[in-house]
Amino acid sequence: MIENKNQQRTPLSQLGEFGLIDHLTKNLKVKQNTTVKSIGDDAAVLNFANKQIVVTTDLLVEGVHFDLSYMPLKHLGYKAIMVNLSDVYAMNAKATQVTISIAVSSRFPLEALEDLYSGIEAAASIYNIDVIGGDTTSSNKGLLISVTAIGEVLAGDEVYRSGAQPNDLLVVSGDLGAAYMGLQVLEREKEVYKVNPNNQPDLDAYTYIIERQLKPEARKDIIALLKKLEVKPTSMIDVSDGLSSEIIHICKQGEVGCDLYEEKIPLDPQVISTCEEFNIDSTTVALNGGEDYELLFTISQADFTKIKGNPSLTVIGYIKEEKEGMHLITRANTKIPIEAQGWKNF
Amino acid sequence: MIENKNQQRTPLSQLGEFGLIDHLTKNLKVKQNTTVKSIGDDAAVLNFANKQIVVTTDLLVEGVHFDLSYMPLKHLGYKAIMVNLSDVYAMNAKATQVTISIAVSSRFPLEALEDLYSGIEAAASIYNIDVIGGDTTSSNKGLLISVTAIGEVLAGDEVYRSGAQPNDLLVVSGDLGAAYMGLQVLEREKEVYKVNPNNQPDLDAYTYIIERQLKPEARKDIIALLKKLEVKPTSMIDVSDGLSSEIIHICKQGEVGCDLYEEKIPLDPQVISTCEEFNIDSTTVALNGGEDYELLFTISQADFTKIKGNPSLTVIGYIKEEKEGMHLITRANTKIPIEAQGWKNF
Repeated sequence: MIENKNQQRTPLSQLGEFGLIDHLTKNLKVKQNTTVKSIGDDAAVLNFANKQIVVTTDLLVEGVHFDLSYMPLKHLGYKAIMVNLSDVYAMNAKATQVTISIAVSSRFPLEALEDLYSGIEAAASIYNIDVIGGDTTSSNKGLLISVTAIGEVLAGDEVYRSGAQPNDLLVVSGDLGAAYMGLQVLEREKEVYKVNPNNQPDLDAYTYIIERQLKPEARKDIIALLKKLEVKPTSMIDVSDGLSSEIIHICKQGEVGCDLYEEKIPLDPQVISTCEEFNIDSTTVALNGGEDYELLFTISQADFTKIKGNPSLTVIGYIKEEKEGMHLITRANTKIPIEAQGWKNF
Repeated sequence: MIENKNQQRTPLSQLGEFGLIDHLTKNLKVKQNTTVKSIGDDAAVLNFANKQIVVTTDLLVEGVHFDLSYMPLKHLGYKAIMVNLSDVYAMNAKATQVTISIAVSSRFPLEALEDLYSGIEAAASIYNIDVIGGDTTSSNKGLLISVTAIGEVLAGDEVYRSGAQPNDLLVVSGDLGAAYMGLQVLEREKEVYKVNPNNQPDLDAYTYIIERQLKPEARKDIIALLKKLEVKPTSMIDVSDGLSSEIIHICKQGEVGCDLYEEKIPLDPQVISTCEEFNIDSTTVALNGGEDYELLFTISQADFTKIKGNPSLTVIGYIKEEKEGMHLITRANTKIPIEAQGWKNF
């Protein structure tokens, strides 16, 4: 499906472990003044002065989280960083450093890892973070990427999943369901390609949703926006497993309930049209699709005027007392309990 | 070879991802006052006040770094933590937190992951560290463990690989080569078992070297000892890839040379006897075996009296000018250049 135009194949064994790490990391420059010592010792050394740090980690496994038949390695490197930065931003923190560990089978030549690292470098450059360490090793099968991201936050500025209060507004950034529908299109094209490898897919109608699947962006801009608007959310989480799963986290950890309004859920027109084409309900996709990497948060009603009318933010519901439960209020004005579907990994 | 007495097999799918993480981490208690928020949010929150932090990460892959036919899962969990803490101590830092990510195929039941976590818990308890996060996901094949360890160190107390000066003493903790010889014994017994599964191996003569392979300890005690003795090494590294590889790092990064004395290399009697039995040269094993997780460091000659006679520390050589090169001085008083063998991963 994605033609590999890079015909050069340098076996990894030619470089050895240390040579490989040196080669892959040689373009990385230290940008953060909190990075005292980066790659090249037993550990990196960081100095955050009197700030708190946040730490998060995620594992991406070939065949489970990504399919290299339509995921270019450069995009994969970029996405592996985004997935982790998204968690840092969801703490209301500034992302500063990452470590990256890669397990890779010998079927991957050096040029493949160079592509992967070019995506990592692009992410590090755009999001102004330092790659401060990692590990590169062989695997018996496939590719696996483990990223740990570190960020900084002033004590008291961190936002947990647990702080929502009854009457708070439930707000989400961007739009939902696009990454999931992008995946559906890519999976369909993969099947078409298997039957007829000469078929040239026309993906013009799906550019946005495919980009949301292959090259998501973590919402650093939303954290900056909230700071500028002087809004501190009462709770926050990133939308990685689907809106319903994240709402349940916010409600359970905050010991609150909520009403979510179906008509308010932000959907891109491409999501709506592709859902129609695939004959899938777009609300189901938004609730359970996942991989949106948007931010879901709650704010006090007193802050409503500060965010009102902002095109990046949508109020989608209200926090209620815990005893009132968690419900979706449909367009037909019926109340349906919100249940976790989320990402089934096992 | 290792009989599985635990016959209960609960499929991982029965718990789901969130249920699995809750179940595996329910016994973990926060012990460090730097841990503000542990498992359960988008990221952990840590506060080190005015201290610097160190960060290191390592990946252990089934079939590459460990063989479950003789590595009990509890030991593997313990070892995965030790491998990372060893890097923290090699910075002269105090280990405080770890994150643990696991990719596991469906052939592993819940009880297997419980065993793995019991080893992780034991390590966290004995070394007084907090498990603050992680990720648990499925893999298409085998087991993979990615650990990131965090430690704290006062600015100026950190010790890099690069500070060695001509005339410094080269010192190593403990003894070398045992983990490698333990592996040789385990590999041999595995072959015997394949031929005759009823054969009961007598491993009494190898208890120390097998324990060094299956359950290594990171040298937290050496960092405490050096502090007590008021010795700050000029450079330090942990011995994970074999003594020769680590000496080369110290010399290259410090832009120095060295003389290493073969007769000074500390070897346990079990290593010597097992090397004789396997007809392997014990010096080669100490130089290239790896997985010792001892600390190799350099100190000023002025500090010699402070460490002299300490049974945990052995002076094995001297730092020289870079132009004099790196040499092993054999028992026969010949000079052999030190070359990297190390751990060939690809």
